[in-house]
Amino acid sequence: MSQIVELFRQPLTVINVGLEAFAESVARQGAAVVDVDWRPPAAGYVDLDTVQGADVESANAEALRRILAGRPLLVGMGVAREVIPGFHDRLITHSGPPIAWERMSGPTRGAIIGALIYEGLAATPEEAEALAAGGEIEFAPCHHYGAVGPMAGIISPSMPVFIVRNEAFGALAYATQNEGLGRVLRYGAYGPEVIQRLRWMETVLYPALQRALAKTGPIDLRTMVAQALHMGDECHNRNKAGTSLFLRAIAPALVETSDAATAAAVLRFMDGNDHFFLNLSMAAMKAMLLPAENIPGCTVVTTMARNGTDWGIRVSATGDRWFTAPAPYVQGLWLPGYGPEDANPDIGDSAITETGGIGGFALAAAPAIVQFVGGTPRDALDTTLAMYEITVGEHSAFTIPALGFRGTPVGIDVRRVVETGITPRLNTGIAHKRPGVGMVGAGLVSAPMGCFTAAFEALREMGR
Amino acid sequence: MSQIVELFRQPLTVINVGLEAFAESVARQGAAVVDVDWRPPAAGYVDLDTVQGADVESANAEALRRILAGRPLLVGMGVAREVIPGFHDRLITHSGPPIAWERMSGPTRGAIIGALIYEGLAATPEEAEALAAGGEIEFAPCHHYGAVGPMAGIISPSMPVFIVRNEAFGALAYATQNEGLGRVLRYGAYGPEVIQRLRWMETVLYPALQRALAKTGPIDLRTMVAQALHMGDECHNRNKAGTSLFLRAIAPALVETSDAATAAAVLRFMDGNDHFFLNLSMAAMKAMLLPAENIPGCTVVTTMARNGTDWGIRVSATGDRWFTAPAPYVQGLWLPGYGPEDANPDIGDSAITETGGIGGFALAAAPAIVQFVGGTPRDALDTTLAMYEITVGEHSAFTIPALGFRGTPVGIDVRRVVETGITPRLNTGIAHKRPGVGMVGAGLVSAPMGCFTAAFEALREMGR
Repeated sequence: MSQIVELFRQPLTVINVGLEAFAESVARQGAAVVDVDWRPPAAGYVDLDTVQGADVESANAEALRRILAGRPLLVGMGVAREVIPGFHDRLITHSGPPIAWERMSGPTRGAIIGALIYEGLAATPEEAEALAAGGEIEFAPCHHYGAVGPMAGIISPSMPVFIVRNEAFGALAYATQNEGLGRVLRYGAYGPEVIQRLRWMETVLYPALQRALAKTGPIDLRTMVAQALHMGDECHNRNKAGTSLFLRAIAPALVETSDAATAAAVLRFMDGNDHFFLNLSMAAMKAMLLPAENIPGCTVVTTMARNGTDWGIRVSATGDRWFTAPAPYVQGLWLPGYGPEDANPDIGDSAITETGGIGGFALAAAPAIVQFVGGTPRDALDTTLAMYEITVGEHSAFTIPALGFRGTPVGIDVRRVVETGITPRLNTGIAHKRPGVGMVGAGLVSAPMGCFTAAFEALREMGR
Repeated sequence: MSQIVELFRQPLTVINVGLEAFAESVARQGAAVVDVDWRPPAAGYVDLDTVQGADVESANAEALRRILAGRPLLVGMGVAREVIPGFHDRLITHSGPPIAWERMSGPTRGAIIGALIYEGLAATPEEAEALAAGGEIEFAPCHHYGAVGPMAGIISPSMPVFIVRNEAFGALAYATQNEGLGRVLRYGAYGPEVIQRLRWMETVLYPALQRALAKTGPIDLRTMVAQALHMGDECHNRNKAGTSLFLRAIAPALVETSDAATAAAVLRFMDGNDHFFLNLSMAAMKAMLLPAENIPGCTVVTTMARNGTDWGIRVSATGDRWFTAPAPYVQGLWLPGYGPEDANPDIGDSAITETGGIGGFALAAAPAIVQFVGGTPRDALDTTLAMYEITVGEHSAFTIPALGFRGTPVGIDVRRVVETGITPRLNTGIAHKRPGVGMVGAGLVSAPMGCFTAAFEALREMGR
């Protein structure tokens, strides 16, 4: 028992509150439990029942209600500059919290270089770097535009995006099409094959999927994620089922709206990329979390995202304010020829999946993922169980068969993170630290406590 | 612990040998274990180390080796009368052991009536019944022709079949295309919509899939089953992942070899039937088990099958001889408007999946299946754990992530069934007892001990 807790507790904390509830969670699953004595909360932790006159418990319950009521539908596609409000021809969005070119990580720089070449704004990597450093291009987080991007998360004006609408609240979210694994833009690669693939995705894949979607009508992504969780996906680093279900849903209409060669090429591309569904699950989670933003007194995390340099969170009551800490390195499995010395720190908006109650939080649904990210199926189970200790509720739509169809842990409460010393656990890809290389591995990482203690402090300072 | 064992022990036995190994299996998974005292084997049980001069352990090891070495490939399709050796225009094959028209169950009769109408040999159900009872039609088990059919399992001369070849041994197996759930031939329905669907499957679905297969080349079904087991299928009553993977594998070639309307119709049909993969997984298991037949001294079960009246098994050393017992009723969940009083006893060749180490034996891989067949995810886990007690080995290709990637239990040893009192556990569909109705539910059932004691007795009588 104490072993499990140690795994998730950050070294800077010694607190232990909530362990009894955790022990109960484990006991309910039939595992042996050894109770650990209660210890006092960490220095700096205080009870926080009221923030600026609002009752925190009520506010958090409202956030949970809104998240669970969300109904994300894939309603269409479009080109970023045309469909994302506020997007413009000199804007490039990236994953994570705001960051200037000078501090950007290798993979983010690499992906921006690739995007500038793809946009025709630069002919060579050197030209692209000079342009990026020159101040003429505006950089901003995807999250500031209702968008999410895995790894470097780059969205440039000409890139096609999926449009996901949360039917219950009208919120809109956006994400690009997934390129596959290996040497791809989002991992910082920008070679000719990367640019060529992006052009094919713009001129063949996107129009074909757009035509098919016009025929299928909106596709319910919440149902698709729910089904995928019953098929061994956690919808972050394992999307084999989600990709299969999406392919099945779109294939007939695709065939009816594209010529045979195009339809076959699109089907082969999706079949060749088990991660195709990732960007859709990310946009679905973003659309479900948007309505939980800006609730007075609410200590629930609405965004977790990393730019490869900084790890950042945003909390409902504190609105658009980012709380950051240095991005940690990921423990994982490595592609042949690579190792820890090649790795960039943690990067990507894909932590939106954990924020929404899937991904690492649903790891118990995806025991086979350990072949990709490391660890054992027992670790996968324990990861999910630990996350119940820092969340405000259990999901009504997303359930885990292996836990008796228990809902996934959802709604990270900053207070419980600080109180228990357990930070959110993610699984993620690993990018090479140098621009232009690409993927080197995949693994597991715990969010840095610094984001949460900073957010907690800010909430405390807002006053009762 | 004793609760779990009670669940699988037949009332007619009191033996308990092998419990320690069972306890170990459970303990290895981290569950609480209470050891039960050893009790003497049941009356009639004797050690059986040699059969007709052959060492049983060596023979069983050889059977396991052959099963595990099997490599079933979907190599093509054809029409039953043209591709199944020995098939002829007046033959109809059915599931389970041999049975005459007079003793046939309602769903088997219903499916034969439908098949005779489909073949144009009868115009009405009454004509069909008269023809079937008249002795002009030959009835035989699918298994006598290397074929397998779910539920009633009817194969008539014009029906298209998948051809699966075990590349390691050259063995060939056959199965029809799956029709879907509800009012379908294999559940005993024979209305106009059933016949119309069968004609469409013969004239549209089959030629389209055949053309696509000619383009894809052989499809590795062992790999597909292995992947599906990591995606929440057990490949008997849950085939959502297998169906998805097959659709993904065939879709591009399908699009390239059929007109758009045909390709779209075929994709919609497969997408609308999560059980489409069942017949492929059955044929794959049959192809893997065929080389284990007729090994001198081998007490491994090579066939388990039910015709809705009798439950039958065949054992390697006793060759083509069937050992039967009355088919039991299935415990399960019911379609709206139906209940236990509507149910036919257990029926179908689909027990070939359990015989090959998947289906009920891999239930731990498919916790979500309990929504379809009843029980709890814990029951699913326990079912797989119990089956290790009656099998000769663990599968090298088929593994269960939730059990730390342990191989599925495979190779049922008649001796261990009789010794432990644990019979094979299956999950299955439930057909209405009257001809012409169709599916009424799905559930779980234990094989009747009578088949195994009869086989054990025959092996013993063969002498040392």
